[in-house]
Amino acid sequence: MTEQPKPGDGPVPYIVVGRPLPGVISAVPGLELVLSLNAGIEHLLASGEVPGHLPIVRLVDDGLAEGMSEWVLAQALAWHRNLLIYKDLQEKREWAPQPEKLARERTVAILGAGALGGQVAEHFVRFGFKTRSWSRSGRPIEGAQSFAGREKLLDAVRGADILVNLLPMTAETANVVDANVLAALAKGAFFINGARGGHVVDADLIAALDDGHISGAALDVFRIEPLPTEDPLWGHPKVLLSPHVAAPTHAHAAVAEMAENIRRFERGEKLPHIVDRTLGY
Amino acid sequence: MTEQPKPGDGPVPYIVVGRPLPGVISAVPGLELVLSLNAGIEHLLASGEVPGHLPIVRLVDDGLAEGMSEWVLAQALAWHRNLLIYKDLQEKREWAPQPEKLARERTVAILGAGALGGQVAEHFVRFGFKTRSWSRSGRPIEGAQSFAGREKLLDAVRGADILVNLLPMTAETANVVDANVLAALAKGAFFINGARGGHVVDADLIAALDDGHISGAALDVFRIEPLPTEDPLWGHPKVLLSPHVAAPTHAHAAVAEMAENIRRFERGEKLPHIVDRTLGY
Ligand SMILES: NC(=O)c1ccc[n+]([C@@H]2O[C@H](COP(=O)([O-])OP(=O)(O)OC[C@H]3O[C@@H](n4cnc5c(N)ncnc54)[C@H](OP(=O)(O)O)[C@@H]3O)[C@@H](O)[C@H]2O)c1
Ligand SMILES: NC(=O)c1ccc[n+]([C@@H]2O[C@H](COP(=O)([O-])OP(=O)(O)OC[C@H]3O[C@@H](n4cnc5c(N)ncnc54)[C@H](OP(=O)(O)O)[C@@H]3O)[C@@H](O)[C@H]2O)c1
Repeated sequence: MTEQPKPGDGPVPYIVVGRPLPGVISAVPGLELVLSLNAGIEHLLASGEVPGHLPIVRLVDDGLAEGMSEWVLAQALAWHRNLLIYKDLQEKREWAPQPEKLARERTVAILGAGALGGQVAEHFVRFGFKTRSWSRSGRPIEGAQSFAGREKLLDAVRGADILVNLLPMTAETANVVDANVLAALAKGAFFINGARGGHVVDADLIAALDDGHISGAALDVFRIEPLPTEDPLWGHPKVLLSPHVAAPTHAHAAVAEMAENIRRFERGEKLPHIVDRTLGY
Repeated sequence: MTEQPKPGDGPVPYIVVGRPLPGVISAVPGLELVLSLNAGIEHLLASGEVPGHLPIVRLVDDGLAEGMSEWVLAQALAWHRNLLIYKDLQEKREWAPQPEKLARERTVAILGAGALGGQVAEHFVRFGFKTRSWSRSGRPIEGAQSFAGREKLLDAVRGADILVNLLPMTAETANVVDANVLAALAKGAFFINGARGGHVVDADLIAALDDGHISGAALDVFRIEPLPTEDPLWGHPKVLLSPHVAAPTHAHAAVAEMAENIRRFERGEKLPHIVDRTLGY
C-alpha cells in the first residue's frame, strides 16, 4: 500500500506569525523565512521563538504609512488649529477668535525616519511646518533638518512645538521620551505618540502636562493594551487617547505584501523591511 | 505768500478699503486702484461705493491659502479619523477601535478651485483622497477630477464623503449648498464651509444633519457674524463652529502683498486677483 502524502508532511518554508506559541516555530520543518504580522517586531524578538539563523521580515503594507500619516496629521492639525478650544467655546456660545499661527511658524520634531516617520515628515514639510527628523543614521528627508544619534536628541527636539514619536521599540529607544526631552520642547508643546507605549515615561509625561509645560498629548499606544480602566491617562484632561488605531493593518494589502515578499525571497532579491537582529528593528 | 502743499491735497492713486463709509471713495482725488482688505469682496461690490471704472484687487496674501488649507484639512482629517468619537469613548474609558478607512477609500468634492480651493484640493490629493473639484471654468488640478458649471454640480458632489465649500459669494453661488446638493452626498458625509454663510441654506443643512444623512458639519462662516447667540447652529450636536478664523489675514504678509500689487500696477503688469465685476469675483 502506498502512503498518500498528507498536507503538512513536507517542508514548510514560510510562516506568518504574530505572537507565536512556545515551540511552534522550531517545530516547523524546513522553515526559511518568518513573516511578521506586524510592523513592530519587539514581541516576536523578545519571545525568543525565532531561531537565530532565520530571517524575519516586518509587515509594512502600503496602507500602513498612509494610515499613520493621516492619523498623525489629524492630531497635529487639530491641535495646531485649536479645534478642541473652539469646541469648548461653542458650548458656551462664545464667538472668540484665538491667536492663530501658520504652520510655517511652528516647528515639528519627529523621532524616527523609517517607513512611517519618513512619510509623516514629508506631510509636515508640505504644510510648511519647520520639520526636524531624528534617526540613528540621520536619514535625509527633503525639506526637513536631519539629526543623527543619541547625542543629537536634545538638539532635535529643542524648542519644538510638536513632538511626534515613530521609533521602533528596542533596548536603545525604551523610555526615550522622558523629562529631559519634554523639558526641551517649547512651552505649551503637543506630543503625539504613534509608536509604542514603552517609549514614554508616563510619569514624566503626566508631570509635564500637569505643570503646563506640555499642553496636550495624543496617545495611540500604551505599555499595557487595552489600557487598564484604572490608568490615570484615561481621565487626564490633557490626554487624547485612541485604542491603537493609528495605522491598522489592512488584510487585503497585507496579504499582497506578504506574497510579494515571498516572491522576492524566491527570486533571491533583497527584502525591504528585513529585521536587523543586532539593532532590534 | 506761497501756499505749502498739504498732505492729501494732491492726487491719491491708491486706497485700501474694507467696508468703506458712504462717499469716501468717490471723494478721493485721482484714485486709480482700489485695494480690498479682504479676499471676499461681495460687501465692497454690494456697497456700490466703487465707481465702475476703478479696478479692484482682492487681498490674497501668501499666508491665506496656507491658513485655509490647514483649517480644512484639520477638520477633514479629524472627522475622517474619528477624533471626536474616540474622545467620547475615552470619557467612558472604552477601548473600542472603530471601523476605519484610508483616505484613498474616500471621495472629497470641493466647490471652488480658486486661490484657496485649488491649494486645498492639492492637499487632499497628496493624502490620497479621491478628489473632485467644481468651478465655473473647470480649472484643472493635478490628480483631481474637474467639473465645470452649474449643470455638472450634482455630478461633482454625488457620493462624496466630504464636501468642502470654497466658492466666492456671488449672485450665482448664493444658496448653492441646498437640500439637493446635500442629498447627493454619500450617507454619513461631512460638510466643511470655509467660504461664506450665504452659500448654505441653513434649514436644509440642519434637516440633513437631523435625519442623519449628513453626519456633521464644520462651519467657519455665517450669514450674520458674530453668529447671534440664539442661532440653533450654536447648540446643534453635529455642528462644529468656529468664529471666522479659517484663514486670517496676516498683517505682515498683507502689507507686502499690497505693496507688490502697487508695484505691478505701476509697471503696467497684470494684477493677479483682480475682480471681474461682471462675474462678481
Ligand atoms: N500605532 C499603530 O497603529 C502602529 C502601526 C504600525 C507601526 N507602529 C509603530 O510605529 C513605529 C515605527 O515603525 P516603522 O515601520 O516606521 O519603523 P522603521 O521603518 O524600522 O523605522 C525606524 C526609524 O527609527 C530610527 N531608529 C531606530 N533606532 C534608533 C535609535 N536608537 N536612535 C535613533 N533613531 C533610531 C531608525 O533610524 P535609521 O533610519 O537610521 O535606521 C528609523 O529611521 C514602530 O514602533 C511600530 O511598532 C504603530
Ligand atoms: N473663512 C475665512 O477665514 C476666509 C478667508 C479668506 C477667504 N474666504 C472665502 O473663501 C472663498 C474662496 O476664496 P478664493 O480667494 O479662493 O476665491 P477665488 O480665487 O475667486 O476662486 C473662486 C473659485 O470659485 C469658482 N466659481 C466662481 N463662481 C462660480 C460659479 N458660479 N460656479 C462654479 N464655480 C464658480 C471659480 O471658478 P473659475 O476658476 O472658473 O474662475 C474659482 O475656481 C471666498 O468666499 C472668500 O470670501 C474665507
